[in-house]
Amino acid sequence: MTLAVRYTAARTLVTAVVEPVEPGPGEVLLAPAYVGICGTDLHVFHGDMDARVVAPAVLGHEMSGRVVRVGAGVEGWRAGDAVTVMPLRWDSTCAACLSGYRHVCRNLDFMGIDSPGAMQRRWTVPAATLVRLPGSLALDRAALVEPTAVAVHDVGRAEVRAGEWVVVVGGGPVGVLIALVARAAGAEVRVVEPSAHRRELAGELGLVTWDPAAEDVPEAVRGWTGGAGADVAFEVSGAAAGVDTAVEVLGVRGRLCLVAIHSRPREVDLHRFFWRELTLVGARLYDRSDFERAVALLADGTVPAERLISRVVPLTEAPAAFEALEGGGDVMKILVDCAAGTRGAGA
Amino acid sequence: MTLAVRYTAARTLVTAVVEPVEPGPGEVLLAPAYVGICGTDLHVFHGDMDARVVAPAVLGHEMSGRVVRVGAGVEGWRAGDAVTVMPLRWDSTCAACLSGYRHVCRNLDFMGIDSPGAMQRRWTVPAATLVRLPGSLALDRAALVEPTAVAVHDVGRAEVRAGEWVVVVGGGPVGVLIALVARAAGAEVRVVEPSAHRRELAGELGLVTWDPAAEDVPEAVRGWTGGAGADVAFEVSGAAAGVDTAVEVLGVRGRLCLVAIHSRPREVDLHRFFWRELTLVGARLYDRSDFERAVALLADGTVPAERLISRVVPLTEAPAAFEALEGGGDVMKILVDCAAGTRGAGA
Repeated sequence: MTLAVRYTAARTLVTAVVEPVEPGPGEVLLAPAYVGICGTDLHVFHGDMDARVVAPAVLGHEMSGRVVRVGAGVEGWRAGDAVTVMPLRWDSTCAACLSGYRHVCRNLDFMGIDSPGAMQRRWTVPAATLVRLPGSLALDRAALVEPTAVAVHDVGRAEVRAGEWVVVVGGGPVGVLIALVARAAGAEVRVVEPSAHRRELAGELGLVTWDPAAEDVPEAVRGWTGGAGADVAFEVSGAAAGVDTAVEVLGVRGRLCLVAIHSRPREVDLHRFFWRELTLVGARLYDRSDFERAVALLADGTVPAERLISRVVPLTEAPAAFEALEGGGDVMKILVDCAAGTRGAGA
Repeated sequence: MTLAVRYTAARTLVTAVVEPVEPGPGEVLLAPAYVGICGTDLHVFHGDMDARVVAPAVLGHEMSGRVVRVGAGVEGWRAGDAVTVMPLRWDSTCAACLSGYRHVCRNLDFMGIDSPGAMQRRWTVPAATLVRLPGSLALDRAALVEPTAVAVHDVGRAEVRAGEWVVVVGGGPVGVLIALVARAAGAEVRVVEPSAHRRELAGELGLVTWDPAAEDVPEAVRGWTGGAGADVAFEVSGAAAGVDTAVEVLGVRGRLCLVAIHSRPREVDLHRFFWRELTLVGARLYDRSDFERAVALLADGTVPAERLISRVVPLTEAPAAFEALEGGGDVMKILVDCAAGTRGAGA
C-alpha cells in the first residue's frame, strides 16, 4: 500500500492509502520525489474544473522522481534512474496530431488533471512520457522542469531573438521563468508585476521590474526602447489589464505571446493590431524538445530553480499547503516532498 | 486650370476649378484616368476622419493614369507612360522605417487622405511613388491595382500556402480580392458574406460562398475540412460577429489575418488562441513588391477586375456617386472617370 493526495470535492484534499498500480506493458512505476503545486492545481482545488476532473483525483504534473520498476517491453530505463515526466498522452489520430501538433491533441490526456498525477508515493506512467535527468540536477530543482518547459515553449512561439526588447506582464513562477529563458536567448527583459515580494525575488535574479501601480508601463517602455516599443510581450497575468498593457507596449510588428488562461473573452484593441501590424500567438504546453531544453537550462544553472522554491512540504501536509496558497501571500513555488519521512527507511 | 473633386465638410463634396501643381524636382504631373471609391473615402465623406483630413481635401488613392510631364531630375518616365501610384510617403527616420517597415511609418503620409489625392484631372506626385503599368492592362482595370495590392499583402502576411483551407469573412471588394489572390496561391477558399448581390458576384468568379444568416458557418467549416478547421481566416467584415466567426472556424495553429479596421476594441476569445495555439496577424497597406505582384495578377487576368467594377461615373458626378454609395445597395467598386468629356479634345 502507498500514500496519495486525492481531490475529492471542491476545496477538499485528503491523504489516502491506496493500492499502487502495477506497471503494465510499456509502463514504468515511479517513486515521485518532488511535485510542484501549479496554478492549475489551485483551479482544480477551487472546484473550477469539476466538469473535467473526475474525483477522487490525484493531482500533480510538475515532478521529479526515480524509476522503481519497469513493465514488460520497456527498454532503456532501469530502477534508480532519475526522471521527470512530460505529462501528456495524445491519441495520434486527431486533426491536431496528424498535423504534427500532438501537444494540443483534441483528446489530450493531461496527466494530473485528466488522469492520475504525481502527488503520491508511487505513480505508474507510460515509459514514453519519461525524460531523463542528469546527475548534476538535484531532484528538488528538477521539479521545475515542467514549468520551465512551458517558458521554453513560449519563448520559442514568440521567436525571441538576441538583442530584442521583451516585456513580461506577470512575474509569477511562469513569468519569471519566461524572463530567464528570454534573457538566456539574448533578449533585454523587463518584468511587470504588482506584488512587491515577487518583484524583489525577480530583482534578486537580476531581472529589472516595473510596478504597474506606480509606473506608466507603456511610457516606461517608450523610454527604455528609445520610442520604438517592445519587440515581444508575454501576457502571463491572466488579467484584462495585462492584455491591454501587453498590446500597448509593442512597437511596429511586435509579437504578443499569450500564455495565461483567459477563461472569458477580453476586449482587445484590434485597431492597434492593424495599425502596427502586430502579431498575437497563443502558446500552450510544450513538446519533448522544450522539455529537454528545460532540463539543460536547469542543469547548467541558467534557470536557478532553487531561488524560485519558496517552501517544501511533506506529502501529508499538501492539503494544508493548498489551503495556505489559496490565501495568496508571498510565495512563488511550493514543492510537495513525496518521500518525506520514508527516506532511509526504504520507500 | 483644371477640375478637382474636393471634400469641404461632412457629407459635402464639390467639383472645383483649381490650379494644377507644377511638378517640382523629383515630381511628376499625372493625368489620372480612373479613380476607385474606397470604404475609407466613404469614412472621410461621412466626416468620421475630420480629425485627420484637412478640408478642402482631394480624395482618391486607387488610381490609374498617364504621365503628362516630369519635373527636374526625374529619370525613367516620360509623357504618355501608363502608371499607377503607390500612395505612400514615409519619413525614413522613424522606428518603423528604420526597422524596414516604411509602409507603417509613424508619420506616414497617405496620399488622398493626408495630402491631395487622385480625384482630379491633374495630380502631382513624387516619381518614387509611380508603378509602371503594362500595355496589356486597360486603365479602368488598373484602377484596382491598389486594393489588389492590399489583398496580396494580406495573403502574404497570412502566409497562405497551396492546399490550405481559407475562409474569408466579408465579401466586399477587398474580401473578394483576397479570395482570388489566395486561390491563385493554391488555397481552397470559402467566402462568408450576408449580401445576396455580393455572394452572386463572388459565385460568378467561381468562389464558393456561405450566407452567415442562413448557415452555421463554423459547422460548415467543420464539414468542409473533415473536422480539422480552417488553416487561415481573413477578417474583412469590420463587424464584431466577423471576429467571432474568424476565430471560431480556425483549426489548431490556424492564422487569423486582421484586415478590417475595428475602430473600437472587440471581445476576443483568447482562450481559443491559447487552446489551439492560434495566431492573429494585423495587416495594413502594402509595399512595392505587393504592388508589382498586383499589377501582374490583374494583367494576366488572374484577378478579373472588370467583373468587380459596378459602374463608372464622370468626375463631375463623383459627388452624386458618394451619396448613392452611402445608401448602400448592390455595388462592388465604383470608378470615377477623371477624363470623361475631355477625351479626343485634348485634356
